[in-house]
Amino acid sequence: MAKETKTRTEISELGEFGLIDRLTSPFGKTQKSTMTAVGDDAAVIAQSVDKVTLVTTDLFLEGIDFDLVYFPLKHLGYKIVVAASSDILAMNALPEQLTVSIGVSAKLGVEQLEEFYEGVRTACDEYGVDLVGGDTTASITGFVVSATVIGSTTKDSITYRSGAKQNDLICITGDLGSAYMGLHLLEREKRAFEGHSNPQPKFEGYEYLLGRYLRPSLRKDIVDELEKAKLHPTSMIDISDGLASDLLQICKSSDHGARIYLDRLPIARETYAMAEELHADPVVAALNGGNDYQLLFTVPLEMREKIGMIGGIDIIGHITAKDTGTLLVTPDGAEIPITAPGFR
Amino acid sequence: MAKETKTRTEISELGEFGLIDRLTSPFGKTQKSTMTAVGDDAAVIAQSVDKVTLVTTDLFLEGIDFDLVYFPLKHLGYKIVVAASSDILAMNALPEQLTVSIGVSAKLGVEQLEEFYEGVRTACDEYGVDLVGGDTTASITGFVVSATVIGSTTKDSITYRSGAKQNDLICITGDLGSAYMGLHLLEREKRAFEGHSNPQPKFEGYEYLLGRYLRPSLRKDIVDELEKAKLHPTSMIDISDGLASDLLQICKSSDHGARIYLDRLPIARETYAMAEELHADPVVAALNGGNDYQLLFTVPLEMREKIGMIGGIDIIGHITAKDTGTLLVTPDGAEIPITAPGFR
Repeated sequence: MAKETKTRTEISELGEFGLIDRLTSPFGKTQKSTMTAVGDDAAVIAQSVDKVTLVTTDLFLEGIDFDLVYFPLKHLGYKIVVAASSDILAMNALPEQLTVSIGVSAKLGVEQLEEFYEGVRTACDEYGVDLVGGDTTASITGFVVSATVIGSTTKDSITYRSGAKQNDLICITGDLGSAYMGLHLLEREKRAFEGHSNPQPKFEGYEYLLGRYLRPSLRKDIVDELEKAKLHPTSMIDISDGLASDLLQICKSSDHGARIYLDRLPIARETYAMAEELHADPVVAALNGGNDYQLLFTVPLEMREKIGMIGGIDIIGHITAKDTGTLLVTPDGAEIPITAPGFR
Repeated sequence: MAKETKTRTEISELGEFGLIDRLTSPFGKTQKSTMTAVGDDAAVIAQSVDKVTLVTTDLFLEGIDFDLVYFPLKHLGYKIVVAASSDILAMNALPEQLTVSIGVSAKLGVEQLEEFYEGVRTACDEYGVDLVGGDTTASITGFVVSATVIGSTTKDSITYRSGAKQNDLICITGDLGSAYMGLHLLEREKRAFEGHSNPQPKFEGYEYLLGRYLRPSLRKDIVDELEKAKLHPTSMIDISDGLASDLLQICKSSDHGARIYLDRLPIARETYAMAEELHADPVVAALNGGNDYQLLFTVPLEMREKIGMIGGIDIIGHITAKDTGTLLVTPDGAEIPITAPGFR
């Protein structure tokens, strides 16, 4: 009975970012409080002359974003708070309130939902975020979770993706690719034990990688440290899709290029070991793995020393003119243009 | 590999509201800006001494909340904006910003998503709401939509569910049960044409009912009128689950009872006709149908005349002491306690 659509363009032809552009570009703006809409980590809404509200939302679907075969519900609850809150940090602000909506499939009972909310609560307690609402519906398919996080800050403190300037240093927190390796390990064990009634996968020695995938930390400490050091990044984004895609977002929004150096990418020893075991490339994991929830940001060149004093932050390259492109420089000096799946 | 949960309580044992209570009651509050959390139409977050931000979120799942066999995507886009924004109106405030997240199944192409966003945009234009963000993910199951709406108002203007006082008049906008009848008609035609390659359902004469289900209006006009009349409701809720459930919410939050009169329930002539055709009870549709998105509110007794002057609002009863319960009074004077599925 529904209207037939004659033409059919596959979403894969546009990529995720192309699709979002196409769907949201016809929208206008009517509220004078709307400062920035689609196109950064969070929306910015003016409260007053100097204060703003930040809002960001994430959708997590079973079978796509998580697999309940190996993802404990408690960890999942914790992770969705981290993943959604991370977008507020990426605006150089702190998360304050949270809504969580769930679509519940028949296979989940009340006790399992309590485990999920216990994880949500652990993260809320740890990061000082208040649960303020949500929606509950039945799901005939899988478990669905939607999380919206709200923060507030002053107009002067907000860091957009678009502020990177030529010669700015490109900084990254923590290490990259470890969450992706944790995911691959879980997928390997799932395949190995498929059909076993009492699977006993061996996870000893892999705790770091599993922890990075199943229970990532929110880098609230970094936003606190930057503030203490009176160090205002020129641009910032959180690494959810992978360094390549997220660096391209900064370059696109800032209308600049970048050079990052392969031998400066922070990759954990555990990631190298797992990559060898899986015959995978640790650099690909670092560039395209995603799920890192680390912060990628730029600071003026003269801030090098201040960055060094904070600790746990690596300088991996610098911002260049737009026409030089976004490049990965190998130790032998080769320059590889950075691309990312889904990015346009 | 995931941990086995020993006890299993079915969600149906608690009901939706019992489940929400159980899951969210262990949560505390750490942010001083958090004014009200779970338990009203929208969360209230303090901006300053006198201003607040309101946030509400809704989740819509294919197969549960809508059926794409007969729900045109353009109407669906419109309806989700109305459904989510309606919760902001129910706080006596106006919706200002919106985020929309979608989980996209393989059966949807770009053109169909454009239809959906065209509906979102039509509603945004009509009601002055700005799209400011969202998330896009693949879905291996059905189409998933999550919408979050933000509004702002002054602390003095907010209307909670909890402010109803004894003898207050119970007011309702529009009519009830018509959306539910529209849904039933669509379901009937779907069954009748199941398996037909070119179904030609007859919808002539049913436009009102179909429109109320597929393209409900946002009662922003009422909130505007109440403000113009300087009429501040003592409590308010939007009718999404049905009059019975939503009136019980007001009574529970306000710690009072209510008497509503069967012969004063606003039921459209089209709803009576359809009920007769389907051998259904129009009063049950009005009480439990849901999907109305009308506003249910209470005002002090002395406001009767002012309410009459606004038009389009029916006074269906009054608030009583808690111990008299929440009752439906029939024309012959019988008093029937009001109950609602899922309500505790």
